[in-house]
Amino acid sequence: MRLSRGFIPTIKETPSEAQIASHRLMLRAGLVRQTSAGIYAWLPLGLRVLRNIERIVREEQNAAGAHEVLMPTIQPAELWKESGRYDDYGKEMLRITDRHEREMLYGPTNEEMITDLFRQCVKSYRDLPLNLYHIQWKFRDEVRPRFGVMRGREFLMKDAYSFDVDHAGAVRSYRTMMLAYMRTFQRMGLKAIPMVADTGPIGGDLSHEFIILAPTGESQVYYDAAFESVDYLAGGFRHESDEDLERFFTDITSRYAATEEMHSAEKWAAVPATSQREGRGIEVGHIFYFGTKYTKAMNAAVAGADGKMFHPEMGSYGIGVSRLVGAVIEASHDDAGIVWPDAIAPFKAAILNLKNGDAACDAICEDLYARFGGEALYDDRSDRAGVKFNDADLMGHPWQIVVGPRGAATGKVELKRRATGERVELSVDEAFAKVAG
Amino acid sequence: MRLSRGFIPTIKETPSEAQIASHRLMLRAGLVRQTSAGIYAWLPLGLRVLRNIERIVREEQNAAGAHEVLMPTIQPAELWKESGRYDDYGKEMLRITDRHEREMLYGPTNEEMITDLFRQCVKSYRDLPLNLYHIQWKFRDEVRPRFGVMRGREFLMKDAYSFDVDHAGAVRSYRTMMLAYMRTFQRMGLKAIPMVADTGPIGGDLSHEFIILAPTGESQVYYDAAFESVDYLAGGFRHESDEDLERFFTDITSRYAATEEMHSAEKWAAVPATSQREGRGIEVGHIFYFGTKYTKAMNAAVAGADGKMFHPEMGSYGIGVSRLVGAVIEASHDDAGIVWPDAIAPFKAAILNLKNGDAACDAICEDLYARFGGEALYDDRSDRAGVKFNDADLMGHPWQIVVGPRGAATGKVELKRRATGERVELSVDEAFAKVAG
Repeated sequence: MRLSRGFIPTIKETPSEAQIASHRLMLRAGLVRQTSAGIYAWLPLGLRVLRNIERIVREEQNAAGAHEVLMPTIQPAELWKESGRYDDYGKEMLRITDRHEREMLYGPTNEEMITDLFRQCVKSYRDLPLNLYHIQWKFRDEVRPRFGVMRGREFLMKDAYSFDVDHAGAVRSYRTMMLAYMRTFQRMGLKAIPMVADTGPIGGDLSHEFIILAPTGESQVYYDAAFESVDYLAGGFRHESDEDLERFFTDITSRYAATEEMHSAEKWAAVPATSQREGRGIEVGHIFYFGTKYTKAMNAAVAGADGKMFHPEMGSYGIGVSRLVGAVIEASHDDAGIVWPDAIAPFKAAILNLKNGDAACDAICEDLYARFGGEALYDDRSDRAGVKFNDADLMGHPWQIVVGPRGAATGKVELKRRATGERVELSVDEAFAKVAG
Repeated sequence: MRLSRGFIPTIKETPSEAQIASHRLMLRAGLVRQTSAGIYAWLPLGLRVLRNIERIVREEQNAAGAHEVLMPTIQPAELWKESGRYDDYGKEMLRITDRHEREMLYGPTNEEMITDLFRQCVKSYRDLPLNLYHIQWKFRDEVRPRFGVMRGREFLMKDAYSFDVDHAGAVRSYRTMMLAYMRTFQRMGLKAIPMVADTGPIGGDLSHEFIILAPTGESQVYYDAAFESVDYLAGGFRHESDEDLERFFTDITSRYAATEEMHSAEKWAAVPATSQREGRGIEVGHIFYFGTKYTKAMNAAVAGADGKMFHPEMGSYGIGVSRLVGAVIEASHDDAGIVWPDAIAPFKAAILNLKNGDAACDAICEDLYARFGGEALYDDRSDRAGVKFNDADLMGHPWQIVVGPRGAATGKVELKRRATGERVELSVDEAFAKVAG
């Protein structure tokens, strides 16, 4: 994208309504604009990040054997009356009456709808295990929306739902998703830690939340340092064998990790002092096993091998896709702006032309811009160098390729790594290879 | 996808609620399921088609210089009170009251919201022309939703909005979008014809709707045969020069084309009899020029070159993305099922294993399946050959690769083209090359 023709409205002043870094930076860098309390429009830069996160989530869900569907945002109230949650859910549920006076609602989650879809479509144990997910906008009418997209009202969530013939199958599905989550967050450049969680209004008796570490996080967390060194993308963390999965799950759950609410002083004392870590964290995912809660309440039954009907065991698995954009920024920013992890950055690199109109500068910039084929943001504006440096730092591209007249005359550019501030003078080819590689 | 492990619930019986072919076939082939009147869940096969259509729309919008954003589904009523449309819109607008008694609505279109976003972000004529689009779910509370996704209540639309400094600029934006639309529909394998339209509740004084020809279409249409032979993907139909655009627009608008409501017997008589074509059509896109209607009503003004504030000229440009799935099927099906155009088919090919467990059949199928890398649907079920043939025809994959024990023994497969029914015996390599090429 050429910045001169793009739509990236940056803001110099610190927006007064933003209380936390991610909210401030998302407004300032032109990622989003608020349209109502807790509701945001995504501008091109923010949308690119959102799509990158979505893509990684999707790839890992597919790799774990889940099937993508897309359920609508508007649901009929009857389904929630069947499950018994219609009255329980309270004012967070956005209730709607249509022109024919039918009670509808904007889905805050989809256990009821997926169970209904399942009972319409699946008739036999032979179709199990089955895991269906979608990435769709949800609405929760928070009484006091705040922190930008971190606690918005309309938000994008990936939610998956597993159906299994028995408890053992459901536990396997649960573990498969847990591993997929660890891989997902690691691919985004995040350090995520699963912590035993209360099951809350969704119900059930096995549940973990995934907390990423960020100094400005909402919760105090306690964890074993062993979590910091595991590489879930390495061999041995495939979804293939039950043994792999068993070992993974045992490792994960045998290490101490807890939010303040679930913290046990006694268990904490058993962690060697050199391994004790405390910090702040942000919840970005949550998984639940809840057995036959919904399949029984909504009578979703399939025929077993013996011909008898039975209610499959379910679990649900959520990732806050839009929330992650804010959470990543909380985990990775500095005073100058955002510091995007490579995998989800809106652009790999910014090309800063320090002297528009200088033939050598223009030629090098155009050449680089063409080579990146859409993966670079070309700052071709006629602004001063200082403005370009500041905006590039603010927007947080992992690399900046600075093209000035002195270097350009001899075919040199300066390559800056945003995360470290390290700068090095390189030939155009070397700079391109370094960023593209 | 392996059909045995996939989630493609086909239906043998003709669903009684479906009155038209596309609705019937989308239910039978397992593309969608209804969740409430006029509201659908997209199953994996349908979602793949929806995403293919979305991708083509997006590529052509980007190529035309539009910028992708993503506005939320829920809008504040105040914006619509500013424009004056809140009371006009009637019962089709899904009105919502949130927990704080604020009036909200589920967006049926986004002129107000984009104008609000524009006035928040754009301050100078230097940022024009600007064209912003998004692909987002909309809701129109149709009194009698019917015809499946063709007239649903929750539907996916691409809507773009252009902002220009003056009338000439706005006309150029209008023509650019018109050309992008012709290219978009052609890439999907559709014959689309732009027809002068009433401007309706959106207002304005220049408008075309895009009608695709389908024998079961909702409207009677009259058009010049010249429309059938133009190739908008060929050279000469770029967005680059004003002259190209002028010539394109003059050509398009000088040919006769009208829906029944706008049909003129007098003008029709002037079309040579050999060029007169009549048929049925389905509206899949609509473009409008409406000048300063919204920028004035909502006071979205920017500074001109002379320093004076002015109200930019706007247009809006819609494509019914989810509707297109149904429209394509109306335009392309037969008694046996769907006949997908190659560009939007959920899978390029189905691989039919006629004898699961036969070593040669299994080996060829697995080899082909691996080579297609996700672009083929492998029917590895233990069903009879007849079931597999019927389902492949029903689902409408452009190619079927039939692997039976007799051919497999000598490394041969049968390749069937869905659209023509043509069958030919080929080696595995030849069949793969033919489909992949």
